Amino acid sequence: MASSSYSNSPCAACKFLRRKCMPDCIFSPYFPPEEPQKFANVHKIFGASNVSKLLNEVQPHQREDAVNSLAYEAEARIRDPVYGCVGAISVLQRQVIRLQKELDATNADLIRYTCNEMPTTQDGRRIIGEG
Amino acid sequence: MASSSYSNSPCAACKFLRRKCMPDCIFSPYFPPEEPQKFANVHKIFGASNVSKLLNEVQPHQREDAVNSLAYEAEARIRDPVYGCVGAISVLQRQVIRLQKELDATNADLIRYTCNEMPTTQDGRRIIGEG
Repeated sequence: MASSSYSNSPCAACKFLRRKCMPDCIFSPYFPPEEPQKFANVHKIFGASNVSKLLNEVQPHQREDAVNSLAYEAEARIRDPVYGCVGAISVLQRQVIRLQKELDATNADLIRYTCNEMPTTQDGRRIIGEG
Repeated sequence: MASSSYSNSPCAACKFLRRKCMPDCIFSPYFPPEEPQKFANVHKIFGASNVSKLLNEVQPHQREDAVNSLAYEAEARIRDPVYGCVGAISVLQRQVIRLQKELDATNADLIRYTCNEMPTTQDGRRIIGEG
């Protein structure tokens, strides 16, 4: 669940933006003061105003997921300024293609075995192992 | 390759921002006037200033990839404001896990066949298909 901490100290967003954290602060439930980097990252990549706009555009019950996905994207972009989390998508897409090919090949092998297309002797008898 | 079009008309970014497109415009090679939506999207999600900062932080030969990954992320976030392209990552991760499980199971089946662990009769003889 989102943590709400405006009763004690300003949220990480208001602390970063050096403003008073009001009880209706849009950031407060999702940017607790003990996670200052989370806000610093989304601020650097998206800007506080864009994050605030986006939070106001989604349903309150979706805001935590929205913040977490923004934080994930921001962190990925800071780690890899060229590809951001799109790099992870490319890696995963290649992994899916490789696995699907391997699975198709393994299934084809299995079908050959289950259809009794096992190696046969010259006179057509099947070769099987020790009984 | 990135297209450069400042000789004819302002790039999509300068047109959007209503400013003169100078020959050294950082956006111009990556935001041609015929793709106005590309800049509108990254501007909406990241802000023009953040995009410009990011482009200045990466090597010139990496800028086209950086712009394209930003455009991809921005479009995904506009389509899905809650999850953006992180939604695609979740889908792909689940797909990788499912394919890996299927591959493991198929490999295990195949190993049972190739190790001659085929179904046997009560007296230990193997059952094989018609000869």
